[in-house]
Amino acid sequence: MLDAAPDPSTRPAEADGTAQDHRRTQILEAARACFTTAGFHGASMHQICAAAKMSPGALYRYFPSKDAIIEAIAEEERAKAATVMEPIRRDGPLLDRFTAAAIAYLRLMQAREAGSLMIEVCAESLRNTAVGERFHCIEHDVRSELVSAMSAAKAAGEIPADLDVGRAMQVLYSVVDGLVLRMALESDLTAEVVEPFLRRIFAAVLGIRAETP
Amino acid sequence: MLDAAPDPSTRPAEADGTAQDHRRTQILEAARACFTTAGFHGASMHQICAAAKMSPGALYRYFPSKDAIIEAIAEEERAKAATVMEPIRRDGPLLDRFTAAAIAYLRLMQAREAGSLMIEVCAESLRNTAVGERFHCIEHDVRSELVSAMSAAKAAGEIPADLDVGRAMQVLYSVVDGLVLRMALESDLTAEVVEPFLRRIFAAVLGIRAETP
Repeated sequence: MLDAAPDPSTRPAEADGTAQDHRRTQILEAARACFTTAGFHGASMHQICAAAKMSPGALYRYFPSKDAIIEAIAEEERAKAATVMEPIRRDGPLLDRFTAAAIAYLRLMQAREAGSLMIEVCAESLRNTAVGERFHCIEHDVRSELVSAMSAAKAAGEIPADLDVGRAMQVLYSVVDGLVLRMALESDLTAEVVEPFLRRIFAAVLGIRAETP
Repeated sequence: MLDAAPDPSTRPAEADGTAQDHRRTQILEAARACFTTAGFHGASMHQICAAAKMSPGALYRYFPSKDAIIEAIAEEERAKAATVMEPIRRDGPLLDRFTAAAIAYLRLMQAREAGSLMIEVCAESLRNTAVGERFHCIEHDVRSELVSAMSAAKAAGEIPADLDVGRAMQVLYSVVDGLVLRMALESDLTAEVVEPFLRRIFAAVLGIRAETP
C-alpha cells in the first residue's frame, strides 16, 4: 500500500487493493444476479456489464471472459465451503458437528440468496456442462471430508456399524439441497425454523438418538 | 381403426384417437427433453419440432404455441400428482401413507427422468414467471391435502399436539425435492435405496416412532 500506485483506471492489477477488491466483488455480485435471472448460458457479458454499471473495457480488465467470472464464483464457493466445514473438524458428537455445519451452510445460502444460483448450478450439472463439472469438484471434496468424519464415528461406535456411510452421505446431501431450494422458494422458511427439524432428520439418517443425554 | 379415417395429416382433430394421442405424447416428450436441455425460455418451437421429428405445420395443429405445450405438460403433472397422492387417502398410519406417497412420487420422477425438468420448473418459480406460477398451483393443491391429512392425524393423537403442521409440511417437501434432485444427479441413488431412510426421516419430522409396533 506504500507503493506509488499506478493509474487504477488503466492498470487495475497494480492498483490499490481495497478499491480493486471492491470492483471485483461488485462484478461478481452483478454476475451472480445475471446468472440467476438468465442462467449461465443465457446471461451475456453485456448484461453483466450493465448490472455492474461498468463499461465492457473496464470489466474486461478484471475478467477477460464469462468463463473467468464463473471460475471466480466457483472459487468463492470453494472458500465458503471450507468455512462452512469448520465445525466438522472440531471435537464433539458427530450429530452436533453435522448439524452445525449444515446450519452454517443454510445461513450462508439464505444470507446471499444463493438458492437460485444453486438451481442454475444443478441444471448445469444435469446437462453435464463444463460449468457443472467445475462446481462438482467442490462438492466432491466436501463429501470426502464428511464421509471420513462418518467413518471415524463408526469406528468409535458412535453410529451403527451397519450404516452405509456412502448412502447416508447422499441422503444428507439431498436433505440439505432440498432445504436450500425450498428456503429460496419460501422466504418464511429460515435456518432458525429448520434447525430443530434438521437435527432430528440427521439423527434419523445417521441412526442415532437426536436428544443429547 | 375400422372407421374410414380422414387424412390425419390434414385433419388431426377428427383422426383416429389412438394415433393422435400417440402424436401428442410424442410432441410432449420431445418438448420435455428440449425444456430440460435448454430451459423453458431457451427451447424454441423449431427445436421441439426437430426433436419430435415433425414439421411446424403438423406440430402447430396439436399445439398452437409453446405456451400451449407448457400448459399440457402442467396438466400431465397435475394428473400424475393425483395418482401419487392416492395412498394419502387410504386408511392406516400416517407414516405409512406419507412414505408410500413419497416413494410413488420418487419412482415416477425416476422412471421419467423428470428431475431435470423439476429443476427448470424451480428456476422458473424463483424467477416468478408465468411458467413457475402454473406449476405452483399444482403444488398448492397437493400441500393442502397433505396438511389436512396431518391435521386429522393430530386430532386423532397420532402425531404430537405441538407439531407445527405447516412447518413440517415445508420440511417434508424440502426432503422430497432434494431427493428428486439428487436422484437426477446420481443415478445409483434409487427410490429403493432411499425408502428406509425416507421412512426414518418422515418419522423424525412428524415426531413419531419409525418402527411399526
